[in-house]
Amino acid sequence: MTDQRTGPDGIDGLAASFLADLEARTADPPGVTRQAYGSGEAAAHRLLAAYAGRLGLPVETDRAGNLYVTLRGRDPAAPVWMIGSHLDSVPHGGNFDGGAGVAAGLAVLAEIKRRAVQPRRSIVLVAIRAEESTWFPASYIGSRAAFGLLAAPELDLKRSDTGETLAVHMRREGFPPERLLGEPGYLDPARLHGFIEVHIEQGPTLVLDRKPIGLVSAIAGSFRYRSARVRGAYGHSGAVARRHRHDAVFAFADMVAALDRLWADLDAAGKAATITLGEVSTDPEMHAFSKIPGELCFSLDVRSGDSQVLAEIRRDLEAIAKRIEDARGVSFDFGLLTASTPAVLDAGIREALAEQARRHRIGYVVLPSGAGHDAAVFAQQGVATAMIFVRNENGSHNPDEAMQLEDLGCALTILVDLLAE
Amino acid sequence: MTDQRTGPDGIDGLAASFLADLEARTADPPGVTRQAYGSGEAAAHRLLAAYAGRLGLPVETDRAGNLYVTLRGRDPAAPVWMIGSHLDSVPHGGNFDGGAGVAAGLAVLAEIKRRAVQPRRSIVLVAIRAEESTWFPASYIGSRAAFGLLAAPELDLKRSDTGETLAVHMRREGFPPERLLGEPGYLDPARLHGFIEVHIEQGPTLVLDRKPIGLVSAIAGSFRYRSARVRGAYGHSGAVARRHRHDAVFAFADMVAALDRLWADLDAAGKAATITLGEVSTDPEMHAFSKIPGELCFSLDVRSGDSQVLAEIRRDLEAIAKRIEDARGVSFDFGLLTASTPAVLDAGIREALAEQARRHRIGYVVLPSGAGHDAAVFAQQGVATAMIFVRNENGSHNPDEAMQLEDLGCALTILVDLLAE
Repeated sequence: MTDQRTGPDGIDGLAASFLADLEARTADPPGVTRQAYGSGEAAAHRLLAAYAGRLGLPVETDRAGNLYVTLRGRDPAAPVWMIGSHLDSVPHGGNFDGGAGVAAGLAVLAEIKRRAVQPRRSIVLVAIRAEESTWFPASYIGSRAAFGLLAAPELDLKRSDTGETLAVHMRREGFPPERLLGEPGYLDPARLHGFIEVHIEQGPTLVLDRKPIGLVSAIAGSFRYRSARVRGAYGHSGAVARRHRHDAVFAFADMVAALDRLWADLDAAGKAATITLGEVSTDPEMHAFSKIPGELCFSLDVRSGDSQVLAEIRRDLEAIAKRIEDARGVSFDFGLLTASTPAVLDAGIREALAEQARRHRIGYVVLPSGAGHDAAVFAQQGVATAMIFVRNENGSHNPDEAMQLEDLGCALTILVDLLAE
Repeated sequence: MTDQRTGPDGIDGLAASFLADLEARTADPPGVTRQAYGSGEAAAHRLLAAYAGRLGLPVETDRAGNLYVTLRGRDPAAPVWMIGSHLDSVPHGGNFDGGAGVAAGLAVLAEIKRRAVQPRRSIVLVAIRAEESTWFPASYIGSRAAFGLLAAPELDLKRSDTGETLAVHMRREGFPPERLLGEPGYLDPARLHGFIEVHIEQGPTLVLDRKPIGLVSAIAGSFRYRSARVRGAYGHSGAVARRHRHDAVFAFADMVAALDRLWADLDAAGKAATITLGEVSTDPEMHAFSKIPGELCFSLDVRSGDSQVLAEIRRDLEAIAKRIEDARGVSFDFGLLTASTPAVLDAGIREALAEQARRHRIGYVVLPSGAGHDAAVFAQQGVATAMIFVRNENGSHNPDEAMQLEDLGCALTILVDLLAE
């Protein structure tokens, strides 16, 4: 008996083959491009359907274009296991973000079919559309559409590359959007026993902790100010004494330093969160190296798997801003707030996966996902949901993603054993 | 006898008239524009020559176009008093920056002439060319040229609005630059008894301290990094734990906060300096609100009238950067350093002006100039140099400059009494 976990004939051989074909068909150097409701994503879906056909597994498509491959169980009345991920990518992105989860699902179906022991529950692999919000400014279009949650105004959202609407792009791909609205979703939460998404880790935790896989505790919620600013007063850099200044850059640094101390305290208390000020700029029309900066714009993205932690940071941020306004004679305007709720994942499935990992002596850590995933939609619909992260170097959304097939094999091993029961 | 200090017939009447004519001839709403070696500056020089002619005072021009109006003293061998300022302005600038000092000089000559008591020393009003470095990227072109200090490569500097060289613009205004190079300067430091520049204050100190005039202790030197940066590593804003981040914005905030503490300590110790980070930006090509910022560019402008203080800040800045590099795994690259030496002004002239102020019960403060002035060139040539700041609201380099004529009158009063002796 060959080792199930690696090699061209092993459990991950099919995943490797699918990923290689996927990369070849959607290559757009550097990296791959699979536009949501565009040619790259369509090519990926056709490829998956072909692989399913070769395995003799039936394929269905819902009205939004999500694709389902089913391995039938003994009990057609039993709620099904669903596994899968998305098949779109960011422009010039990596092959594994999304693709690895679909490849894993395909390999799981193939392996269980190969074992010729029909499981009680059907196992359905889903390839989800339009997960990357780089294309349309909305999260989880495909998975929300599968649950009947897409809102009519979202059809008017424009794709970042073409400027054409979601409705236009859906229709062009063969999914007329009017068939979607006002209809119940293709997916009924009551018919799902659980959903498990395999996805590459987009941070460095597993690499640094030397573990092949991670079991996700929660998918972070967030609050975001995409266009905040602090205003002071411009002035001659040499001619205004310290005590008379209203310097937007010093005020901003005060705020960041205070958030840094707050974050360190939360971290020490075991309250996981991330705080990112990704975009920062003085006003190019007004600033000068010899001028006191009178204004600075910034973005703020705060994420946590714990709503209470998010609330605590927001409350503290307000107090920090107030204190700086009083001290420096500046004013903060945080602008429009957008927020999302954390999705707590299912402890039961997570523990069952952990048990399989221990049994196979596969190292793992339990960690939150700071990034969003379709799994959050399933969890928020009341579906028992889990995620397995696979170790990956160099982050995601870039062609340098580096997942090792052995690590994907570890995820497959525990998944097969859980679902085949 | 009428009050010498205010009113259309008083000492400041001529200054008011000159300033009104100057504004009318160089208006460019909003504000005035007097391009260095351009039409606005030329109009200002023609106006001054006309005023001098009406006073019966001889006018000379040096090879760089600086204009000199002389009130002859009794002793032609005695080194002369020189007063004056520049006549160019920034684009859409205010009428008083530079103009007020020339107007003051004109009024001083007129008043001393009116008194019909010929002073021992000649008094020479100079209207200096090209002080504002917004036009050509060099400081003090006119005053340096007067001392024979302009360097040949500077003739190739391009004016910011036209893209044409200093040489082209000088020639067009009637001052062929080849007559300038390799020649001794028009001004000989040994022939100058002293130089006094009247200038509006460009900061708010006199307004806030409720004093009409300031006597300048020193003109700040500086060190500047116009294009510094700190580099960390880009990453997914949600997917990289605090301990694994190399965040350029947090590193920058650390540096600014440390500079702020340093500055507060210097201030408390009576060591005057200014620290300005006027231009700050993450990379618009690379940044995103959901990305850990991997790079941030900034400018740093540090000024002080005390070389030791400048050296202390530079030394501390290096230590601060090193500490942050170690703590956050980032690297600072400060780029090209430019620096200028502080100019210490003459304590004897300052005290003589202060004594006149006390005698006339005119309130004054002694303060450093954070901004640069032509007076620095005179001081660095070994000329005993003083500056009188006149109270002014709303800073300078903008059309909202607001100097009151009464305050200029205070400067005139002490200047006339000193120079007429």
